Amino acid sequence: MKLASYQSGRDGQLHMVSSDLKLAIPVPDIASTLRDCLDNWDNLLPQLVRCQQDLNAGNLESKATPFNPARCSAPLPRATQWLDGSAYVNHVELARKARGAAMPERFWTDPLMYQGVSDNLLGPCDNIVANSAWGVDFEAELAVITDDVPMGCSAEEAHKHILLVTLCNDISLRNLIPDELEKGFGFVQSKPPSTFGPVAVTPDELGTYWQDGKLSLPMQVHFNNQPFGHPDCARDMTFNFNQLIAHAAKTRPLGRGTIIGSGTVSNKDKSTGSCCLVEQRMLEIIAGGQTLTPYLKAGDTVRIEVTTPEGQSLFGAIEQTYTGNS
Amino acid sequence: MKLASYQSGRDGQLHMVSSDLKLAIPVPDIASTLRDCLDNWDNLLPQLVRCQQDLNAGNLESKATPFNPARCSAPLPRATQWLDGSAYVNHVELARKARGAAMPERFWTDPLMYQGVSDNLLGPCDNIVANSAWGVDFEAELAVITDDVPMGCSAEEAHKHILLVTLCNDISLRNLIPDELEKGFGFVQSKPPSTFGPVAVTPDELGTYWQDGKLSLPMQVHFNNQPFGHPDCARDMTFNFNQLIAHAAKTRPLGRGTIIGSGTVSNKDKSTGSCCLVEQRMLEIIAGGQTLTPYLKAGDTVRIEVTTPEGQSLFGAIEQTYTGNS
Repeated sequence: MKLASYQSGRDGQLHMVSSDLKLAIPVPDIASTLRDCLDNWDNLLPQLVRCQQDLNAGNLESKATPFNPARCSAPLPRATQWLDGSAYVNHVELARKARGAAMPERFWTDPLMYQGVSDNLLGPCDNIVANSAWGVDFEAELAVITDDVPMGCSAEEAHKHILLVTLCNDISLRNLIPDELEKGFGFVQSKPPSTFGPVAVTPDELGTYWQDGKLSLPMQVHFNNQPFGHPDCARDMTFNFNQLIAHAAKTRPLGRGTIIGSGTVSNKDKSTGSCCLVEQRMLEIIAGGQTLTPYLKAGDTVRIEVTTPEGQSLFGAIEQTYTGNS
Repeated sequence: MKLASYQSGRDGQLHMVSSDLKLAIPVPDIASTLRDCLDNWDNLLPQLVRCQQDLNAGNLESKATPFNPARCSAPLPRATQWLDGSAYVNHVELARKARGAAMPERFWTDPLMYQGVSDNLLGPCDNIVANSAWGVDFEAELAVITDDVPMGCSAEEAHKHILLVTLCNDISLRNLIPDELEKGFGFVQSKPPSTFGPVAVTPDELGTYWQDGKLSLPMQVHFNNQPFGHPDCARDMTFNFNQLIAHAAKTRPLGRGTIIGSGTVSNKDKSTGSCCLVEQRMLEIIAGGQTLTPYLKAGDTVRIEVTTPEGQSLFGAIEQTYTGNS
């Protein structure tokens, strides 16, 4: 099942999207928003599945319209929780290496995770607006949306709580990060609202590519229409989504609609490129002592997508332009 | 105007409460939840004010019931944003002193603030459930609830965006904090859902006690029915709420229903006591090299309230029992 929220009010208007991303249809008789849909997920599931089957079978073509990602908001434009992990520890190690710092050994067993802003989340084609002096960067990630997760949920139990999977661009203000890292209180000013994929999909839509809380497909990033990175999302993912959920739920229950992010996808094999500018800059520093790649400049574009080997886009594409200062 | 959410579903049931906290009445004809009420605040304000006037004048006594804080959830049981500042820098300085660390000078001009969990927030009389090995502590705070705050809002403009003021108990798991502070990513495991006061009140209800984004009244904390602290909320508040809002909104807009906390209230004059156990412990370390006060033990109670010199409770009281391990 693929679900999207078209821009409407504060919470968007829920749409069912066909598996091939060609058609979309609002489903007000089932739920008007994804938030309402999640609140009553178990009860609504039979109707949702029936609607999806009808849409995929071509039975709703007279009512459906071509799916338009440009009309999408984030699936949950104002969520009640956004927790972003750093599951690709190789990326964290590189960041440390670039500034000459060793990484604590426990980062391989104890995930880094921060709580980020979860309202005013951006739709897949929304412009990025931020002061260029802040060092604006993208980060291509995967994210899952959970149902109610009890406090103390184990990683073994966590997979049951993943209702939806989507894409994320975790926009980062690099020049504001060092000060906030030093404070230790997390990222308030250095992480503005993130962007999410056009559609959020149930794990069954991912077939055998989704296993053990990981997606075995490359994250395809284009920067200014040129290939920039295509690391595999499962490879080098030190903590799978089940482990990230268990980490988040250690001392709190997670309410349904909680979004958990993977952190920037990154492979040790650097021939696969990068999913954020800062990683490219770190590699430049390690190689030659200085950065060559600047942060986003007005007019720069980023495209983030995951497709199957057959070329089917799974979540649609995030396609954003950085418009410069507000 | 005083508003409460009675326990009901995920978002509570909105009630108008009389200014003397004696009577409450549901207001489904105006809005069924505080979230809905905030979404349409400007349109609903005339009806809300009329309802409050009628309730205060005794015109609704046949329909109203005695106000019962034990039936209250948090005003916004699942908010979309909870940002907690550390406005009483004196408290931060003490914490550092107790562990022999100097405080960076910029903490006097650049607020500490973390983004905390904003769903599954606790009602004023809910039990505190957490593993005692985590070092469970309370923190008595004030909090404000905002409307839509544009990105880049100045402190001078911020006061217009404060719709409501309430109490908070920012429950903290002290033994988990050092590890998370060292990581720099903020408090995910060490700050479980906070508790909020029975009622949230419009600033006009606070009269002249509310000035320049500060409340000039003591925060009264009782621990196991004994007076524990009564520091003045305005004194030694280095950053007022206007400044905290401006800090939060530097690189993001704040959606309406954002809750901003003050951090533990603390005065330099230690004869006013403390608003959390850890401050008491820090003072013991500084005085005698060791802590005498343990963290919460099963059965311990905490009561947090603000009253006028005439004895009128402004927000009702948070009254919680720590029940020990889950």
